[in-house]
Amino acid sequence: MATMQPIKLGVLGLGRAFTLMIPTLSKDPRIDLVACFDTNAGASAAFSKAFGGVAHTSADALCADPNVEWIYVATPHQLHEEHVRLAAKHGKHALVEKPMALSLSECERMRETCEQAGTQLIVGHSHSFNAPVLRARSIIESGRFGRVRMIQAMNFTDFLYRPRRPEELDTTKGGGVVFSQAAHQIDIVRLLAGGEVASVYARTGGWDRQRPTEGAYTAILNFRSGAFASVTYNGYGFFDTDPWMGGVGEMGWPKNTDTHRLTREKYLSTQDEIAEARRKANRNFGGPDYVPDLRGAPTAFQHFGPVIACCEQADLRLTPYGVEIHDVHGVHLDALPPQAVQRSEVVDEMWSVAREGAAPTHSGAWSMATMEVCLAILESSKKGGAIILEHQAAVPAIRR
Amino acid sequence: MATMQPIKLGVLGLGRAFTLMIPTLSKDPRIDLVACFDTNAGASAAFSKAFGGVAHTSADALCADPNVEWIYVATPHQLHEEHVRLAAKHGKHALVEKPMALSLSECERMRETCEQAGTQLIVGHSHSFNAPVLRARSIIESGRFGRVRMIQAMNFTDFLYRPRRPEELDTTKGGGVVFSQAAHQIDIVRLLAGGEVASVYARTGGWDRQRPTEGAYTAILNFRSGAFASVTYNGYGFFDTDPWMGGVGEMGWPKNTDTHRLTREKYLSTQDEIAEARRKANRNFGGPDYVPDLRGAPTAFQHFGPVIACCEQADLRLTPYGVEIHDVHGVHLDALPPQAVQRSEVVDEMWSVAREGAAPTHSGAWSMATMEVCLAILESSKKGGAIILEHQAAVPAIRR
Repeated sequence: MATMQPIKLGVLGLGRAFTLMIPTLSKDPRIDLVACFDTNAGASAAFSKAFGGVAHTSADALCADPNVEWIYVATPHQLHEEHVRLAAKHGKHALVEKPMALSLSECERMRETCEQAGTQLIVGHSHSFNAPVLRARSIIESGRFGRVRMIQAMNFTDFLYRPRRPEELDTTKGGGVVFSQAAHQIDIVRLLAGGEVASVYARTGGWDRQRPTEGAYTAILNFRSGAFASVTYNGYGFFDTDPWMGGVGEMGWPKNTDTHRLTREKYLSTQDEIAEARRKANRNFGGPDYVPDLRGAPTAFQHFGPVIACCEQADLRLTPYGVEIHDVHGVHLDALPPQAVQRSEVVDEMWSVAREGAAPTHSGAWSMATMEVCLAILESSKKGGAIILEHQAAVPAIRR
Repeated sequence: MATMQPIKLGVLGLGRAFTLMIPTLSKDPRIDLVACFDTNAGASAAFSKAFGGVAHTSADALCADPNVEWIYVATPHQLHEEHVRLAAKHGKHALVEKPMALSLSECERMRETCEQAGTQLIVGHSHSFNAPVLRARSIIESGRFGRVRMIQAMNFTDFLYRPRRPEELDTTKGGGVVFSQAAHQIDIVRLLAGGEVASVYARTGGWDRQRPTEGAYTAILNFRSGAFASVTYNGYGFFDTDPWMGGVGEMGWPKNTDTHRLTREKYLSTQDEIAEARRKANRNFGGPDYVPDLRGAPTAFQHFGPVIACCEQADLRLTPYGVEIHDVHGVHLDALPPQAVQRSEVVDEMWSVAREGAAPTHSGAWSMATMEVCLAILESSKKGGAIILEHQAAVPAIRR
């Protein structure tokens, strides 16, 4: 690695997703933040100042920049397809945020475009990159506890009442918890159960007229392997599952038990959707309320709520510290060494693809399959029956 | 109450169910244990010695005893119908253990027989009698948090590896976790969501050839109210949900975190099914390994694993101490006063029916509806689609 050049990354979109990725991308010596574009010129200027990269004046100019090798597509969901295609057109590889897109046809076109251009496509960050998930997958692949038979996954959060832009509350524009949050949970569960979902039965719920999109769902996933999974998400901001994750929040830091109440208090004090969207923008990189993350190395891994994978001879519980194994010998933690930089697993995967010739785990085909499950959750709830899936992908061999 | 006579109870079957009910039935001044019958003459003799009741030599003699007012039917599942009908034939009211029976036609006949005889029928104990469940129902009925929209219930136990008789591992004879354990969980969820289930989609799992019955299930229940519930049970004895219940076990006492390992260790050291059945029988009342419960008043309520009822304006989490309310004001426990005697809610319901003219909450119609859901879980998993239900019952008004 010492002899290899860092990946020259151009960032397209400096909003919430990029803000959350700043520690990862700015601290890892394998990444050079060489350029950016955002419609907010203030954010672009702040990028140049903070990271020394070029602030381009259009997405096209960014993708055409010969100094850029990979594009991190972190624009709103509905623009992912256009921007991945733009990157591919200029011969640039793409790391595109989840959800991959809003329809299977968009996913298909993204894959085809990249394939024809000979460029790589990785979809992430999602929480299926988290090291404890990958460790659990590795344990499962080893076969020491037999096959996975059943998975239980759930997450109760305040998602719906964090500051939102209007389109984030409009399902037709990729809003709601199925597009934004199921992408994490389904990716994790698919990785653990082998990837190929045969059918999905689901219910979605929306019960706040002020937030007119899906705020919750529950689904049963039937895997081709015969395994089944029960997955539940509730973003209505009352009960919080994080006390069951050792009091560690999604981002891997100790969480205030009063978080949900505070989220709703701030929400209730916000006047209108313009003020709310502004409040969100202000917290992002380059905004007046942006607070750089100066906390140093994380004390725990990121997570997406309780997940228990039941194998024939053990249950594996994901924790923010590793994989808790429950078997005939009792309970013990397969602890993982702490990370120097949070979410460095994303750079691990990019690096293995860009510099070591590996195929991506979170490829276009993989992520399109997750999108198919998410769309099936919406469709099953609407139509009232199980949905048969046709675009599923098996778990690729994971580099460790 | 001071002027009313205690309920003169005859016990039919002195096995595991009765053993677990001894503290409740023997300590409550509202109950007189006046008679019994069991095929094990030793247990019958021990009953007479311990409680002063008459040990009859047949079920018919017990039911014919003019000193008996109610019969507690605690025989194996497959005998419930016969014994409830026998009680009714003799004009005796019946408290019958869950599951009510093994088929809807049996349930129907039990109801009809009691109705024609003019006798009362209560099905229990089940964990839906637990005071925190009834308190949550009361909060929901008050309407202060809006309608119930979604319920999440799960329970991971060592059910399958506790000592069993062969029929407990044979689904056709009422064995497995759907008949024995879903009866608890479904009853709780139905009580919280209004009772009437429109349809059920489910998967069951059985992955130990040595225990050839359902060891796990997951289901989505669609209620007529529009609410939905995700319910999961895993009895394979690895992961344990009780740490998420404050370290309190199902029976309301602090639980050793090593319990599942110890259960499997004992199981693995048992030689054959005859030895196993004997081990189970020996622990029951009258057996050589029976240990009277001398622990006094319980420190917590019994429970059936994590249950979260999501209303429009709050999530209600059942705990062994009451109902934890998560709303816009944060988290607070609606604590219940400690019980003098565990499971005294069962006697509360019997008493209100026997002495105060109330209709039972856990009536034949109510419990037949729970049985219909349990059977639908088995059928849905077998056939692969959702099952429409036709024998559902709404929650009756609950006396408080």
